[in-house]
Amino acid sequence: LSSRKSLISQSTADSVRVYDLDLVRDLVGKVDLGDMAFLELVGRLPTPEQSVMTNAVLVTLVEHGLTPSVLAARLTYFGSPETLQGALASGLLGLGSVFVGSMEGAAKLVQEGLASQDPEFPRRTAERHFQESKRIPGLGHSLHRQEDPRTERLFALATETRIAGPGVALMLEIAGCAQEVFNRRLPINATGAIGAVATDLGIPWQLCRGLGVVARSVGLLGHIREEMDRPLAPEIVRWAEDG
Amino acid sequence: LSSRKSLISQSTADSVRVYDLDLVRDLVGKVDLGDMAFLELVGRLPTPEQSVMTNAVLVTLVEHGLTPSVLAARLTYFGSPETLQGALASGLLGLGSVFVGSMEGAAKLVQEGLASQDPEFPRRTAERHFQESKRIPGLGHSLHRQEDPRTERLFALATETRIAGPGVALMLEIAGCAQEVFNRRLPINATGAIGAVATDLGIPWQLCRGLGVVARSVGLLGHIREEMDRPLAPEIVRWAEDG
Amino acid sequence: LSSRKSLISQSTADSVRVYDLDLVRDLVGKVDLGDMAFLELVGRLPTPEQSVMTNAVLVTLVEHGLTPSVLAARLTYFGSPETLQGALASGLLGLGSVFVGSMEGAAKLVQEGLASQDPEFPRRTAERHFQESKRIPGLGHSLHRQEDPRTERLFALATETRIAGPGVALMLEIAGCAQEVFNRRLPINATGAIGAVATDLGIPWQLCRGLGVVARSVGLLGHIREEMDRPLAPEIVRWAEDG
Amino acid sequence: LSSRKSLISQSTADSVRVYDLDLVRDLVGKVDLGDMAFLELVGRLPTPEQSVMTNAVLVTLVEHGLTPSVLAARLTYFGSPETLQGALASGLLGLGSVFVGSMEGAAKLVQEGLASQDPEFPRRTAERHFQESKRIPGLGHSLHRQEDPRTERLFALATETRIAGPGVALMLEIAGCAQEVFNRRLPINATGAIGAVATDLGIPWQLCRGLGVVARSVGLLGHIREEMDRPLAPEIVRWAEDG
Repeated sequence: LSSRKSLISQSTADSVRVYDLDLVRDLVGKVDLGDMAFLELVGRLPTPEQSVMTNAVLVTLVEHGLTPSVLAARLTYFGSPETLQGALASGLLGLGSVFVGSMEGAAKLVQEGLASQDPEFPRRTAERHFQESKRIPGLGHSLHRQEDPRTERLFALATETRIAGPGVALMLEIAGCAQEVFNRRLPINATGAIGAVATDLGIPWQLCRGLGVVARSVGLLGHIREEMDRPLAPEIVRWAEDG
Repeated sequence: LSSRKSLISQSTADSVRVYDLDLVRDLVGKVDLGDMAFLELVGRLPTPEQSVMTNAVLVTLVEHGLTPSVLAARLTYFGSPETLQGALASGLLGLGSVFVGSMEGAAKLVQEGLASQDPEFPRRTAERHFQESKRIPGLGHSLHRQEDPRTERLFALATETRIAGPGVALMLEIAGCAQEVFNRRLPINATGAIGAVATDLGIPWQLCRGLGVVARSVGLLGHIREEMDRPLAPEIVRWAEDG
Repeated sequence: LSSRKSLISQSTADSVRVYDLDLVRDLVGKVDLGDMAFLELVGRLPTPEQSVMTNAVLVTLVEHGLTPSVLAARLTYFGSPETLQGALASGLLGLGSVFVGSMEGAAKLVQEGLASQDPEFPRRTAERHFQESKRIPGLGHSLHRQEDPRTERLFALATETRIAGPGVALMLEIAGCAQEVFNRRLPINATGAIGAVATDLGIPWQLCRGLGVVARSVGLLGHIREEMDRPLAPEIVRWAEDG
Repeated sequence: LSSRKSLISQSTADSVRVYDLDLVRDLVGKVDLGDMAFLELVGRLPTPEQSVMTNAVLVTLVEHGLTPSVLAARLTYFGSPETLQGALASGLLGLGSVFVGSMEGAAKLVQEGLASQDPEFPRRTAERHFQESKRIPGLGHSLHRQEDPRTERLFALATETRIAGPGVALMLEIAGCAQEVFNRRLPINATGAIGAVATDLGIPWQLCRGLGVVARSVGLLGHIREEMDRPLAPEIVRWAEDG
């Protein structure tokens, strides 16, 4: 056996292998970065429809304005401009339970619901969260109260590419029940849509947060670029010190 | 003015804007993740040829086997499996001067050479490094001694897409002079090829390391996925303790 | 009001303030680093006994051999020797639920037990964990099966300094019940002892993990020092690649 | 040989060893956290005077108000309150060339000066920096323009404890020459004082940044504690979004 220690990748004098593909011969110039993410997460290359959808999910997650994550990266760059990787890492560390990590919760809910094969799962989920005064992962957004524009686009694309399957269907059912039980508008937010779509793409919920981490690392690059020319971090510090 | 604080991105109740584009309307479902990286770094969407080339560069950087970065991420996941972002960040922090960061040096050399408009730049660069017993950024590789398979592919693609321009030309000249001056085979390695191609894509050398950080974050996802099912970290610890 | 934005610390042209103390006048040369940790966590300087105990807890946590955290820091240093802070941060990121973070669980258990004022708390805790086949935080250790040498020393010191109070007493009761219910030797491990002592020092459980992070950052310094002279990281990589 | 892989620390069923000391028997309850830092960096326990001085240096570095590092840690905590280690790591990543890392430069200058055995080193250093329009590491401070209060205290303590030696003397000479050559007041700032004192404590310049990282990790604990009760991060985000 050529590699006991990793089945994913091996580097030799002649080649770099990723799963059963040769990096140079099979991948470079033939697939895009979103396809590589699919390959890493699922273990094989995506179909053209899965490629479109995976990239759509990732592109959706690249930017969301001046988030805490972006501000942390810019502040770290201010102190250590010689280490781009440190600034990016600093920004990624805030992608926890409150923001991007929430898509993990939505994907988990959907994947557990599908595994349960319980037709009452959506209603019982809504009722349980209502009784415990808890938010349902993937529903509601402080900014996009009526409709999250990202959700509409992702679901339209999931229909168009025929990726939409049991995951998207279950998420819609949960949202329907939630609206009845909570008796108010609870739109599916971007992380809810992504949790549902990721399920239909075959991505385990434990790895969904990784989609956000990868995508945001792309977005952070742009903010570091701007920080180089038009620093915001010193202004933040000035505002903070100016008690 | 709608946003004093960042010209790149702004998030409102109705939309997320990236430069002058609307995330949902202009980007999701229309561009891939590599295109987004180009957009963040250069400020506008790539042409189809630039898209192919940017994705090729990024795909090249996704995997290189069980690198120190991959091992650090796997070890961090072992101690903190509940925080995927921490494991990824831990792995990215090692992308410094020794490995992926070296492409920054290659890009800097090429961009300074072009800026100098000095026809003697390649020869003088080779001679200066030889006299100071220094490696020229982007040349030579401990593993791929004769030819780095990634370089050949990237340069072929750069020619095919007509992205290859003054950056690639200068890198080839530097390599030619280096071989004469050092009197031994010094193939352009992947970071050298990427430094040259990134120059012809219009990416400033200060941000080139970011291409590697973004790409490797994709590769780390796969290694975390494998670590979940087939843990390597405990074996590393056992090997280390077994003094 | 001099500072709206932080009550902890403020820096002006003449002084740096920490809570109501002046850094230079009241702290430098008068207190040690462990006292500063107590001050930051509790809001006032420790008594001499609290100082001894806080330092003892921190010193206990500095080293535990070639842990995953140490190995991650050394691997990151290998790739990025120019950024000591990145190597340390990389190592600290693995201090999650599996290793150092476990003291958070022990402290939480003890602090919830004390808050409950329920005399049956120890027995009920042991039974609940037994029924759910769960480990009780702070009990048992894969390496130190009979007795964790660190626990004995910390508890002796807590008695000597008269810091030992309701926290230590409750942890001992929980361990006693656990041994009966699980019907096997379950020694209080170092994180259990620290969770109990930290409770008696007045440190909220939510911050206990921080003691470990601070202490391990000291230990990582020594490992980076050794890595400079006697690199282990390249050997790890060689072992890993040698599939 | 009991441990091939690390000479610093080894953990067995009965004990944890640090260099040639037993953690439980020789260190816990006997030394403070600053002593442990000295031990890790220098390889043996400090004398009482070295202990006072090492702790003084570390205490000096714990806090400096609402620094970029503190703000990054607070923003990361906002997004990921479940991972204290991630928030601390995020804050530490900004301790690069601009802030805390600058003490590395001061220590390097002093240690190179001593190694050179050149009596003209101070004057030549001042002149070279003046000609190249560069700041001399360890001199001048944007906030403390006349005198850095931390320097005065550290140097007084270094004299009192008789730690002050060739390192402090050389730094004072460099400052004297700098004032003449630059023809303006250039007080030795805290990082300059620390670079000089660390030299006299026997700490290699390559590790001096580590003193700052360890000390700031203690300070960050207090800021996370405050962030829990009195969040500043959401206000920063609101200020930033409010373009």
